[in-house]
Amino acid sequence: MDWITVKQQAREKFRGSCRVCPVCNGIVCAGEVPGMGGLGTAASFHNNLKALAECKLNLRTIHEVTSPKISRILFGKEMAVPVIAAAIGGIGLNMNGAMTEREYCQAVVAGCRQAGVVAMTGDGPKPEVFDSGLEALAEYPGYAIPVIKPRCTEKIIELAEQAAAAGALAFGVDIDAAALVNMTNAGQPVGPKTQQDLATIKKHTTIPFIAKGIMTPDDALRCAAAGVDAIVVTNHGGRALDHTPGTAEVLPAISEAVQGQLTILVDGGIRSGADILKLLALGADGVLVGRPLAIGAVGGGAGGVALVINKLAAELRAAMVLTGVGDVTTVPPSVLWGGRR
Amino acid sequence: MDWITVKQQAREKFRGSCRVCPVCNGIVCAGEVPGMGGLGTAASFHNNLKALAECKLNLRTIHEVTSPKISRILFGKEMAVPVIAAAIGGIGLNMNGAMTEREYCQAVVAGCRQAGVVAMTGDGPKPEVFDSGLEALAEYPGYAIPVIKPRCTEKIIELAEQAAAAGALAFGVDIDAAALVNMTNAGQPVGPKTQQDLATIKKHTTIPFIAKGIMTPDDALRCAAAGVDAIVVTNHGGRALDHTPGTAEVLPAISEAVQGQLTILVDGGIRSGADILKLLALGADGVLVGRPLAIGAVGGGAGGVALVINKLAAELRAAMVLTGVGDVTTVPPSVLWGGRR
Amino acid sequence: MDWITVKQQAREKFRGSCRVCPVCNGIVCAGEVPGMGGLGTAASFHNNLKALAECKLNLRTIHEVTSPKISRILFGKEMAVPVIAAAIGGIGLNMNGAMTEREYCQAVVAGCRQAGVVAMTGDGPKPEVFDSGLEALAEYPGYAIPVIKPRCTEKIIELAEQAAAAGALAFGVDIDAAALVNMTNAGQPVGPKTQQDLATIKKHTTIPFIAKGIMTPDDALRCAAAGVDAIVVTNHGGRALDHTPGTAEVLPAISEAVQGQLTILVDGGIRSGADILKLLALGADGVLVGRPLAIGAVGGGAGGVALVINKLAAELRAAMVLTGVGDVTTVPPSVLWGGRR
Amino acid sequence: MDWITVKQQAREKFRGSCRVCPVCNGIVCAGEVPGMGGLGTAASFHNNLKALAECKLNLRTIHEVTSPKISRILFGKEMAVPVIAAAIGGIGLNMNGAMTEREYCQAVVAGCRQAGVVAMTGDGPKPEVFDSGLEALAEYPGYAIPVIKPRCTEKIIELAEQAAAAGALAFGVDIDAAALVNMTNAGQPVGPKTQQDLATIKKHTTIPFIAKGIMTPDDALRCAAAGVDAIVVTNHGGRALDHTPGTAEVLPAISEAVQGQLTILVDGGIRSGADILKLLALGADGVLVGRPLAIGAVGGGAGGVALVINKLAAELRAAMVLTGVGDVTTVPPSVLWGGRR
Repeated sequence: MDWITVKQQAREKFRGSCRVCPVCNGIVCAGEVPGMGGLGTAASFHNNLKALAECKLNLRTIHEVTSPKISRILFGKEMAVPVIAAAIGGIGLNMNGAMTEREYCQAVVAGCRQAGVVAMTGDGPKPEVFDSGLEALAEYPGYAIPVIKPRCTEKIIELAEQAAAAGALAFGVDIDAAALVNMTNAGQPVGPKTQQDLATIKKHTTIPFIAKGIMTPDDALRCAAAGVDAIVVTNHGGRALDHTPGTAEVLPAISEAVQGQLTILVDGGIRSGADILKLLALGADGVLVGRPLAIGAVGGGAGGVALVINKLAAELRAAMVLTGVGDVTTVPPSVLWGGRR
Repeated sequence: MDWITVKQQAREKFRGSCRVCPVCNGIVCAGEVPGMGGLGTAASFHNNLKALAECKLNLRTIHEVTSPKISRILFGKEMAVPVIAAAIGGIGLNMNGAMTEREYCQAVVAGCRQAGVVAMTGDGPKPEVFDSGLEALAEYPGYAIPVIKPRCTEKIIELAEQAAAAGALAFGVDIDAAALVNMTNAGQPVGPKTQQDLATIKKHTTIPFIAKGIMTPDDALRCAAAGVDAIVVTNHGGRALDHTPGTAEVLPAISEAVQGQLTILVDGGIRSGADILKLLALGADGVLVGRPLAIGAVGGGAGGVALVINKLAAELRAAMVLTGVGDVTTVPPSVLWGGRR
Repeated sequence: MDWITVKQQAREKFRGSCRVCPVCNGIVCAGEVPGMGGLGTAASFHNNLKALAECKLNLRTIHEVTSPKISRILFGKEMAVPVIAAAIGGIGLNMNGAMTEREYCQAVVAGCRQAGVVAMTGDGPKPEVFDSGLEALAEYPGYAIPVIKPRCTEKIIELAEQAAAAGALAFGVDIDAAALVNMTNAGQPVGPKTQQDLATIKKHTTIPFIAKGIMTPDDALRCAAAGVDAIVVTNHGGRALDHTPGTAEVLPAISEAVQGQLTILVDGGIRSGADILKLLALGADGVLVGRPLAIGAVGGGAGGVALVINKLAAELRAAMVLTGVGDVTTVPPSVLWGGRR
Repeated sequence: MDWITVKQQAREKFRGSCRVCPVCNGIVCAGEVPGMGGLGTAASFHNNLKALAECKLNLRTIHEVTSPKISRILFGKEMAVPVIAAAIGGIGLNMNGAMTEREYCQAVVAGCRQAGVVAMTGDGPKPEVFDSGLEALAEYPGYAIPVIKPRCTEKIIELAEQAAAAGALAFGVDIDAAALVNMTNAGQPVGPKTQQDLATIKKHTTIPFIAKGIMTPDDALRCAAAGVDAIVVTNHGGRALDHTPGTAEVLPAISEAVQGQLTILVDGGIRSGADILKLLALGADGVLVGRPLAIGAVGGGAGGVALVINKLAAELRAAMVLTGVGDVTTVPPSVLWGGRR
């Protein structure tokens, strides 16, 4: 299995819901929600890529870094590379039935395990979405992080504890889904969370708690004050609100504000190891990858997922060799042209 | 009736005069006047969208706003959402005869009423344009705001009083049509107005007076000094003069200059609730929407118009939930990334 | 004859050498020299349009300018509008034989006279190019300004005096053609001119002397010191050197430097009356228009040329009404958004 | 043979591996590695062109430079124009077998000699790549500069001395190939070099040593400290690492840092003599040209290569005439608009 074949197969199976473009940039699929695109004008999706492209890397060749260390510990687990699969649900609707919810979830978790990393799994109005994550955990304990919609606090705690019991490495709440109408329409209202809600959730759960959808220093500090273990700086791949900044734009101020009080994950338009290196330089501890892994899963199942992660790992290693960075845990801002941070 | 169907039907009925593009951005239709495009290079149209896109929203999820208030009072009337339909005339010429002047006017006013808002209606060389507005008022008193071309002051007063008698909520004068040749060619000359003209109009009319086509703080202050009740910050959808700034670029300085002395409405490239939220943050009290409602009217009649307004309302509500804004009357500048204002 | 018909006819007669695009922006024809495009990447052509587009106009509607004065005196002659046809030669080669050199020259001079303005005529390796200008002068004395290639100084003086004898309003030298190989290959070497050369030319000629191809304040001051009557700020429509700035970028500093010591003309990407107004606000006394008039001449002969000039005049008048400018001789910088100058 | 014919023939022989676009800008071929494109999103390739395009030239016409001197001495050899052919290897793979490795190498070296300049030749996992350079040297002594992959230091010295023995003008090491997997996969590991490695190489070699792949002032100073004779500021045509700056962006700071301690060459997106003039103004002593010469070689063999170089020389001469620069060895920063450096 190679990347070209995986993409070709994915292109066929998506049947138009994703064109598997040469560069996945949200232009052709703008507004396709449901589908794989960004909401509205897809400006948030585009801003993710634009913000990353505006960060340029200092190519350096005179140094002694030949074998950079790309593994790191996240949530107490050694990851081969600081990449986590982003949670994607609603496969039938968004991917034109390319796979079932369960097949997708299995492929991603199994592929991540194969590549030495872990996957986030989803939640949705139908129980099968969340349950698929628990089932994958049953098979691969420790390799999934269920992400719960911002339901009522009690329900979140209940689901988080189910996840913990199933062997989840951590659990997340994607608060950026606060305005998701399909949840509310299905009688399972979602909404924003207060700092107090977050503290309550943390208090009544037993595994690391990840708050997803943090785009401002203020919100990040509220998470830290509530005892949240990690945040994901994300605009939900441009699918929550049109016209938000790119995540690479907001990450530096967030990282500076929280001063290491919690783990910072980030996603949004990551297409290569060079992008990962940039985000680590801007203050992230690890990254989430979404659409490229969806292409891997649809085009090649677990093997396709592992292939994408291994490709990103190889590119990250090459980018570190070409910038003289020896360890993913200490990527200096000077890696970026203009030392931007 | 759903949005996809409305667009599909509109695309057919426009017969090329509007392509109903995935994102309505004035690129394909550049220079198509008559038609639905912007004048010349359509730079003014494009600048509207560009200026809006450059304003980015701070996605916030840690707060307690779950049910934001999106209704507000404008011109003494409670509007379900601060959106007013922009006046569009010359349907036969610009929309390739997709509807008659009267049908269009009826559809927009009826649709607005259905959605809990009001519509501006037009004026033109043929009496039927202005009269269509009066007729719609007869059916839906209080739901239309006739907008009069910048004719001689006496004629404006005469028509404004006809509008008042017909039950208009307010009346407007689109001074940005000052160079419209088809009016002058038809023996009904139009032109700019002095502050004194505006004061005279205000003095001899009995319902709120809206001056449309204000793009500088100076002109806005002249309106305030003349006793004008409201202004519309607009470049006439890019159809009056090529190469004006986008309205979102000029709005902040205008809002700062007038300091609440009059009501500020704005239009230009508004495509979603996120755009509305931005403009409220930049100082507007309400917005006008043009082309999207034309698509609604042509594709679905009154129902299509209501559908578009309800869609904007739902998006505005979602945008407020995702930025933590509780009330449309108090949208803080901090909603914008970089606090731009 | 109307503009749409003229464009349609031009499109046919150009047979691909010019596509008569909706907006004439040098994108499709990039690198087509010979042809109608810009040299190399056509960056100089594009920069002209980009620089103009970056100047935005303050739409103003509250004032008393209803009938702006758009005529002005240039070179002692009252022009209906401060627009001069740019010299275009090599019709056979560049326009795929759409017209003969003589036909083109006649059409442009006659059309300009019809519209109340004057035309520049060309020069080239074959005598017919320069002679066509003299012939047009014979028919329309006072309506042409022959532009001589930067030949040896004696030859320039000789040709300038021929032009004077034929009734030319002025003569020009397009020094920006200094690297034109087809002249040198034909045994008629061209090159740059020193300030002393310019002074010598001025001394031995009897009608106003226009130096064309001035893009820096230094060169402009050298022209002033040499007694040159007027300069044309131009990058030769992007056909002399790739990657020069747009003329609207360099014009303000040049205008500031020369402080009215000589007349300033400018060309480059002018497509509408709004563009003319901008350039006058940036310091020009008048403008040259090239490609749009070529389309007019090829598509409609003298009538097509007059139509284009009348269209520009009407647009300029409208732009002045919509910005509150009463006279083309006193266009304030405040017409531009941000007061850019 | 003319440029249009060469391009036409090249288009056929490349069979899709290069489309020979009107402007070679890396857009269509983005991500095509193997192939002729840039890596990943091709941002590094695009940044090269963008950075060059952002440097604009001051067109000047009032001066006395009519016959600028474009030749200069590099590595002790008089070059007709300061242009060196960039090393390109892997012809079979990257150019779809348009030529053999040997044919390509012969065409480039012979064409360069014909045009009065020299060529860099390549290195790769198969010995034929490096050997082709030595063979070309045997035929044209002094006209090639073999560039060695960043192998182990001893191997570099061995190959450099083979090159010296074969009559090479100099040798290079493209350290920017430090992460090239096909070398490592073939059991010939490559990697970054320390300053000490460079000093060792310099110490044990007898001809000028060129370090290729320098994109920061720090690395340039390390080269100077190690006694390296020349550097090439390059991002490997966008094929080493995605998202590096354009070379024209980083060149000024590098040139300022090294203060003439070593010769500075640069490549990346050079398409015309105007581009060469810009890079000389930004601090380079000479330039490398890659893709345009590949088109020349594939489309016209040695003659095609010479044609491209002669074309660049003519354009450089024209650009110097149009900016008033008399000598390529003293191009002032004031040639650039805004005096950018």
